[in-house]
Amino acid sequence: MVVKVYGPAFASSKRVIVCLVEKEIKFEVVDIDIFKGEGRSPDYLKLQPFGLLPVIRDGDYTLYESRAIIRYYAEKYKSQGTELFGNTMEEKGKVEQWLEVEAHNFHPPIYTLVAHTVFSSKLGITPDQNVIQENEAKLGKVLDIYEERLSTSKYLAGDFFSLADLSHLPFGHYLINGVGKEYLIRDRKHVSAWWDVISNRPSWKKVIQLFPPPT
Amino acid sequence: MVVKVYGPAFASSKRVIVCLVEKEIKFEVVDIDIFKGEGRSPDYLKLQPFGLLPVIRDGDYTLYESRAIIRYYAEKYKSQGTELFGNTMEEKGKVEQWLEVEAHNFHPPIYTLVAHTVFSSKLGITPDQNVIQENEAKLGKVLDIYEERLSTSKYLAGDFFSLADLSHLPFGHYLINGVGKEYLIRDRKHVSAWWDVISNRPSWKKVIQLFPPPT
Repeated sequence: MVVKVYGPAFASSKRVIVCLVEKEIKFEVVDIDIFKGEGRSPDYLKLQPFGLLPVIRDGDYTLYESRAIIRYYAEKYKSQGTELFGNTMEEKGKVEQWLEVEAHNFHPPIYTLVAHTVFSSKLGITPDQNVIQENEAKLGKVLDIYEERLSTSKYLAGDFFSLADLSHLPFGHYLINGVGKEYLIRDRKHVSAWWDVISNRPSWKKVIQLFPPPT
Repeated sequence: MVVKVYGPAFASSKRVIVCLVEKEIKFEVVDIDIFKGEGRSPDYLKLQPFGLLPVIRDGDYTLYESRAIIRYYAEKYKSQGTELFGNTMEEKGKVEQWLEVEAHNFHPPIYTLVAHTVFSSKLGITPDQNVIQENEAKLGKVLDIYEERLSTSKYLAGDFFSLADLSHLPFGHYLINGVGKEYLIRDRKHVSAWWDVISNRPSWKKVIQLFPPPT
């Protein structure tokens, strides 16, 4: 079965696609432009009632929320492609922990920075310098903790690449390409090295080449 | 091994404890009062570098982020106590989806409501009626989607109780007890019935009795 992924141009859908590439799972894409309100169409809302991206269809099975989808495929195709959950239950626990850190600590400030810089005009937001500075400071504090963590292990969950690292790629990409706050990564030696390793994986380079992020 | 859970008085730690009760896992608790700044002590930051609750210790293993911890125990003790991930990979995918909906759609507005009502003085927040109204409206829209979902299945992920439902208990409790916005649940027939079923589980009643929420 070929997996259909909706909205490949957008960052959260790329979280799913890079996982499918790592797991060597065939997929096709369905374009949908949330900036044009296509997320609010009745047909789309039947698939994703919150009107958000991404959603996948896999035969009769529909699933939304990018971090749920990547967990589903990493486990369903455990023995295919890259192992993305570690090898033991305890490693998997750490993957889950850092996936949650990405979602709750890394994502909110970086999303706000992206919204107030790269997509302000498309989202109808007047960029607010106070909001930008506040979230820049928040993200810096989060990355200080990453720096400490990455001084003792090569990747976030341990010495293995996992969903936890992968989940940072789509919005981390905007921090380097678009937001103009690359220093937040480059001023931190271990974060910078980690970013170079994960963003140079063939899977991510392929995703960026196939589906250039909108700006 | 007895699991040590930090901060049982607080809502996100209760997410972990109710899971341990459902899974029939022995635990003990370590009191920590984040309102008194105990989350910023050097010893605590070694366990949870973000200074947040909860964290667990299980022998030499330390894990934080409540939704990571409940996934870890639900899987590690799969054949013990209540099955909380469903029976098939596809059911588990739906559990993951609704766990993410809880984290990203339900939690932010209800957390803000709780912060601006129940804990405003402890958090040093001046309750802002505009913020309250805005988040009340947001939560209402989220619960409209829950209402539709729960008109076709008994629980969020399907006709089985799961981590997805369990994860709503700690902050859902405050909506009924403290925030004063019970109508958001009671005005929605299926949400109201679902809430009664999940909040009357012996596990949750035991947690509330053992560790009364602070107000």
